[in-house]
Amino acid sequence: MATRVKPLSGFPEFLPAGRVVEQRALDILRQTFELYGFAGIQTRAVEPLEQLARKGEITKEVYAVRRLHAAEDARDELGLHFDLTVPFARYVLENAAGLEFPFRRYQIQPVWRGERPQEGRYREFWQADIDIVGQGQLAGHHDAEVACVMLAAMMRLHDELGLPLPLMRASNRKLAQGFYAGIGVDDPLPVIQAVDKLDKIGASGLRDVLAQMGLGDAQIQAVLALASVSSAGGDFADQVRALGVDNEQVRQGIDELGGFVARVGADFPGRVVADLRIARGLDYYTGCVFETELAGQAGLGTVAAGGRYESLASDGRNTYPGVGISLGLTRVLAPLIGRGVLTASRPVPSAVLVAVDSEETRGVAEDVAQALRAGGVACEVSPGAPAYGKQIKYAERRGIPFVWFGGVAGQVKDIRSGEQVDADAGTWRPPPEDARPHVVYNVATSEASARIG
Amino acid sequence: MATRVKPLSGFPEFLPAGRVVEQRALDILRQTFELYGFAGIQTRAVEPLEQLARKGEITKEVYAVRRLHAAEDARDELGLHFDLTVPFARYVLENAAGLEFPFRRYQIQPVWRGERPQEGRYREFWQADIDIVGQGQLAGHHDAEVACVMLAAMMRLHDELGLPLPLMRASNRKLAQGFYAGIGVDDPLPVIQAVDKLDKIGASGLRDVLAQMGLGDAQIQAVLALASVSSAGGDFADQVRALGVDNEQVRQGIDELGGFVARVGADFPGRVVADLRIARGLDYYTGCVFETELAGQAGLGTVAAGGRYESLASDGRNTYPGVGISLGLTRVLAPLIGRGVLTASRPVPSAVLVAVDSEETRGVAEDVAQALRAGGVACEVSPGAPAYGKQIKYAERRGIPFVWFGGVAGQVKDIRSGEQVDADAGTWRPPPEDARPHVVYNVATSEASARIG
Repeated sequence: MATRVKPLSGFPEFLPAGRVVEQRALDILRQTFELYGFAGIQTRAVEPLEQLARKGEITKEVYAVRRLHAAEDARDELGLHFDLTVPFARYVLENAAGLEFPFRRYQIQPVWRGERPQEGRYREFWQADIDIVGQGQLAGHHDAEVACVMLAAMMRLHDELGLPLPLMRASNRKLAQGFYAGIGVDDPLPVIQAVDKLDKIGASGLRDVLAQMGLGDAQIQAVLALASVSSAGGDFADQVRALGVDNEQVRQGIDELGGFVARVGADFPGRVVADLRIARGLDYYTGCVFETELAGQAGLGTVAAGGRYESLASDGRNTYPGVGISLGLTRVLAPLIGRGVLTASRPVPSAVLVAVDSEETRGVAEDVAQALRAGGVACEVSPGAPAYGKQIKYAERRGIPFVWFGGVAGQVKDIRSGEQVDADAGTWRPPPEDARPHVVYNVATSEASARIG
Repeated sequence: MATRVKPLSGFPEFLPAGRVVEQRALDILRQTFELYGFAGIQTRAVEPLEQLARKGEITKEVYAVRRLHAAEDARDELGLHFDLTVPFARYVLENAAGLEFPFRRYQIQPVWRGERPQEGRYREFWQADIDIVGQGQLAGHHDAEVACVMLAAMMRLHDELGLPLPLMRASNRKLAQGFYAGIGVDDPLPVIQAVDKLDKIGASGLRDVLAQMGLGDAQIQAVLALASVSSAGGDFADQVRALGVDNEQVRQGIDELGGFVARVGADFPGRVVADLRIARGLDYYTGCVFETELAGQAGLGTVAAGGRYESLASDGRNTYPGVGISLGLTRVLAPLIGRGVLTASRPVPSAVLVAVDSEETRGVAEDVAQALRAGGVACEVSPGAPAYGKQIKYAERRGIPFVWFGGVAGQVKDIRSGEQVDADAGTWRPPPEDARPHVVYNVATSEASARIG
């Protein structure tokens, strides 16, 4: 098939070395979530459009899906999921009888949004979600737990891949709602959604928006004052109290947020702050809310966010309260892979290229390869049988560190050092660091990028 | 969000135990492909519709994708990929400058087809593909290689998950095309596509179709005679020669198929036969073609298929010949998971539930959990602090084999045997077979299913 090729903006794809990085990150997330007792699930890519349309504001970003040869006047009924929360809510309702609650699940899948593509926005990207969902009730200590699990995963991405350190900012809906009620705001949600845009529109922009909503000067002043409260420890509580708004909801919010920051901060010192600017626009949050960015990468914005919801879903008989957090992995990785900051030590799994003497004796090389594979050594046989020098060049171009000559009792050459030794393919193993491609953090490229960008 | 839940036919989803099975199968495929030196890639879920429409017959099954709020009269421009070959061809052209050839790649992703759902057909399902693609040329020995790699993967699925043994049937396009030319058929492709339906329509159905194409009785007889040729060894060559059609293409096809069956049969005795009924309907195959089914599961049909193509793609300057094979994993797994034949030893990763004395001392349990996790032991802390008996029941319901009592220097109980011993959370490890959930092949369920089904 002759093809004109046109990359699609907003749909990132990687060369094999980039995919090694992405796969490693996906493995780290999965391993971490399982270590903390979260069960993996996958949901189908599509949901009924009527479900996807529920989140109001986000509807315009949905990709509708229909059979190409459906009748011209057929209504679109399905759409690609734009997050993993809507599908998870549906999955819980559909399978409640087969699940044990509290249900701890992780889910790592691509999601799709029909946005106009722009820097840092993607139309297809990986999300990694964890949630703990109860049936009827869910204890409060799980709030800090899911935050700690995601921070543990992000610390591994830092330690093993070189990603910047995470910094989590947390607030609490009860605190904000109680406060807004206390200053005479009837409907707190629009105010929360306006405060959520503070970073984008600035204080003066927020003033305008709040004024348009009908808030008076004193109210606007109070909203801005609350949004400026921030502390790494429990000081935020004093700062809130100093604003002079006190009621049961505010006190409960202060308690929850204080407990959250203390608990998360104990496990991850310096990685969490109370920050009452944090609002989250989604209407379903009812308690703790949190956003995480990467240190020194404020331009990247929020890469992981979540919170507490009293009713993820309801089937009439039961409600399902929960708490969860979602990491936008592609948003973190794609720029670093794209700029060459993160790459792999080689783009192929093979640690060994088995050289071929002649096409007549290719079977000898294949026997060597089978002996190596029986020992778990990833390898491939040379596709042709040119002079050894050319076969070594073939390995070099792929970053394959070792070339094997002769039969099962043969010789293996480290083509980086030139050292060549007798070896038995049944027992020889590469050094552990050469067994599989590993992720390389390219400091020079990173610094150059920082200077340029 | 209150939700009415309606399962979508053709979009299989699994409970957590089923997902353990699926994830294990995906891991086996990935590990095997990497052991043989194949690099993993992922492509976006969507392709331009004009690319997806190229395969003629399959167009009706494509899901078109468009932004929900696109203009009413906007043309659909994107579709979900229905296989991994079209996206791979595009990927090779788009990235040729960044790839080394021959390029060995594996790709494991969901694909979508807008079919009317029926038994064994899915609208969303996992495919696992391997291909070796050259630039301008590709040696013939790779044909048997990709077949062997997929058989190696399927043998692991047999050995480790209990799936039925694979049986591969192979033929060769050159042989078929040369033969049809030799009996005076001008355009061999429609005949090949008709023979491809032999299993569905039977010999008399095939006679009718060929007669409608204008073939005479002698020609029809010859086509049926060729399609009946089959042998585990090289006998097929004598059977073909006995039909009295001889030309250069037929001889080349016999050579290629003979070499293929000999090579694959040497590595996997009894798992490959030459079978000239095998045709493959797709127009791009030019040499070896092969289909694999599972022993005793003829009703499941072909689960893995592929072949040789002289031009996967072309960018004007280069053509990219290759050979590949695709496994329809969901087709194999979903019925077995759905009927409970394949399940997991437990639906959660946790090997240990850390009991909690009281909410005031939850921190002690969390310290135990952290010590266990530092040693790689997957665990979770009891969500509540009821009587120990209730916490043990909680573990039992989830299949968690161990419950921990006390602090880091505490006691661990195997709740299956009741044995309880002193242990230190920093050094204690579960037996390897309990460390992670493993896949269970439920023989009794399998036999019951066989009887019923």
